[in-house]
Amino acid sequence: MKLGILGNGQLARMIALAGYPLNVHCVFLDPTSDGCASTLGESIVAPYDDPKGLSQLAQIADYITFEFENVPGQTLEYLSQQMPVHPPAKALLITQDRLGEKQMFNNKGIETAPFAQIDNLTDLQKAIDNIGMPGILKTRRLGYDGKGQAIIRQPSELKDAWQSIGAVPATYEGFVAYNREVSIIAVRAQNGEVRFYPLVENIHRNGILSVSTAQINDPAQQQAEEIAHKVLDSFSDYVGILVIEFFQVGDKLLVNEFAPRVHNSGHWTIEGAATSQFENHLRAVTGMPLGDTNAICPSAMINIIGKVPNTHEILKVPGAHLHLYDKEARAKRKIGHITVCANNAEALSTRIGRINSILH
Amino acid sequence: MKLGILGNGQLARMIALAGYPLNVHCVFLDPTSDGCASTLGESIVAPYDDPKGLSQLAQIADYITFEFENVPGQTLEYLSQQMPVHPPAKALLITQDRLGEKQMFNNKGIETAPFAQIDNLTDLQKAIDNIGMPGILKTRRLGYDGKGQAIIRQPSELKDAWQSIGAVPATYEGFVAYNREVSIIAVRAQNGEVRFYPLVENIHRNGILSVSTAQINDPAQQQAEEIAHKVLDSFSDYVGILVIEFFQVGDKLLVNEFAPRVHNSGHWTIEGAATSQFENHLRAVTGMPLGDTNAICPSAMINIIGKVPNTHEILKVPGAHLHLYDKEARAKRKIGHITVCANNAEALSTRIGRINSILH
Repeated sequence: MKLGILGNGQLARMIALAGYPLNVHCVFLDPTSDGCASTLGESIVAPYDDPKGLSQLAQIADYITFEFENVPGQTLEYLSQQMPVHPPAKALLITQDRLGEKQMFNNKGIETAPFAQIDNLTDLQKAIDNIGMPGILKTRRLGYDGKGQAIIRQPSELKDAWQSIGAVPATYEGFVAYNREVSIIAVRAQNGEVRFYPLVENIHRNGILSVSTAQINDPAQQQAEEIAHKVLDSFSDYVGILVIEFFQVGDKLLVNEFAPRVHNSGHWTIEGAATSQFENHLRAVTGMPLGDTNAICPSAMINIIGKVPNTHEILKVPGAHLHLYDKEARAKRKIGHITVCANNAEALSTRIGRINSILH
Repeated sequence: MKLGILGNGQLARMIALAGYPLNVHCVFLDPTSDGCASTLGESIVAPYDDPKGLSQLAQIADYITFEFENVPGQTLEYLSQQMPVHPPAKALLITQDRLGEKQMFNNKGIETAPFAQIDNLTDLQKAIDNIGMPGILKTRRLGYDGKGQAIIRQPSELKDAWQSIGAVPATYEGFVAYNREVSIIAVRAQNGEVRFYPLVENIHRNGILSVSTAQINDPAQQQAEEIAHKVLDSFSDYVGILVIEFFQVGDKLLVNEFAPRVHNSGHWTIEGAATSQFENHLRAVTGMPLGDTNAICPSAMINIIGKVPNTHEILKVPGAHLHLYDKEARAKRKIGHITVCANNAEALSTRIGRINSILH
């Protein structure tokens, strides 16, 4: 069986690795030839909107998926006319516009932080008057890992913030005083079955995910699952992994955003859960039954950002599993991650501390 | 880092898959170009004793290992003069001669089933008089998965047995009335550290391994580890996975044979142990620290032999993990395996039963 993947980065790489034992062969379409997935399957080197490349992909692949949100929506719509594409193009299209995404949540009765549509400086001034400061100005399109964002703490920063994001259509979102950031990883099969992984608590540094810790039996699990069901139900034909990020304020979860793909906050599932998010994504999009999503031990994921650490020291930490992506080191770039497992939360915390002291 | 592997079958494939997250790139040397590992790294297509191919491998690779015992000993000796080869050539050489292997065990005070050297029919007659019947005639060289073997139950079978193995140098081994067959998987690092996986109980069908079940806290664990230490100590520079197969008679372990490589009875470690045998073999041979060898749940491995089963039904079994090798189906050929995990031994047994009923 052949699975076409739009993109050839680390998410495609980990999907492809999960594919080998299931005899699922991956074919990557990407404008670059040297993405870190590209040694793990066939490559079609072409822009995402190149009709010739897409037609070649459609001929080779039995199913199509994608590893990131910035694939042109038209690309997925074009492929969807010819073959099964999972998750559906319309889920991708919604995530490509922060404003539409937040409006969709509110329309379904799902709470978010306060936000406003920003098309010019006047809108921004009004939004600040209504929502207050601090807040964050975000481009509606093409942002990730803190890019295309500017924090506004006082009125004097307004103009600079607007210029720094390129004076393009944006949203302004009020800061919420949250206790923590969490995410839920759901997977839906072609037969409609939905399974959830344990909630994950996420810690960001400089706008980039740093540590994700699985929260076994978390009190907010049910609330997160109910919200995920609402989102999944809004796409009746959703198939594959879906991840929703939340701010928790008191006991309440406010949705930040969702991702229609495997997600950095789910990398711990490779060793920490019975079936990894990558294998379950593959199983779902190729029509196989879902695997068990239970955690098998307390575990966490720590991103390796910017430079390769002393891997020898990392591997000496009991329960540590290294995942390098074979990417050139560069500031703020995710070049790998470490999963760390332990028998209990206290031992896990000690091991995370030890890894952090090696990394930083 | 580049690891050269002699062979490109399923063991090389699973080593290569474990290599990706550690940025260890595999290079396979094999006379065939289409082995099931070959899509996972560079390939050198050449006979194992081809000086040109070996020299090319030596230039590319930083370390060398092998996936099976029938690599010519001279090949490893040649490569060892140029670069680190693990496990050492002398371990491989011993396993290539059943007689020498058994003599080595006895010389170290390690008990085996009774055996005799057979070079002709007269030797065989004498051996039967001394050891008794039933017993098994095995070629000294190049046997695996029950090939090159003949069972002798009565004197009339003696000549046919001798002809059936090709009238070549052999051993005759008396059957022992054993309670069970078990194996121990050890790994030794370059710094001499040794770790053991839990003992494995193995069930064969028609001379081919069928089911391996991890035995957590088995009473024979210590005895098996002591014997493994004796074997490891006889090669002062042994690095990598070493597996010893035993017959258990009463409380006593008799050694059957050893394998200086990753082993079919260790495949359960991919999901059932904290670190798989493949990752630990890689870590050892490339000089990294060893990973945790503890079992993380009751688990077992069931071989897929001869034909691809209904994979949809297999994946519906809770805790089942499918590993297909992308090999053409053929009678008696190992084309994949299934690991199955559970929370307790009873649930595991039920799941094994369910998988067996799908397979057979």
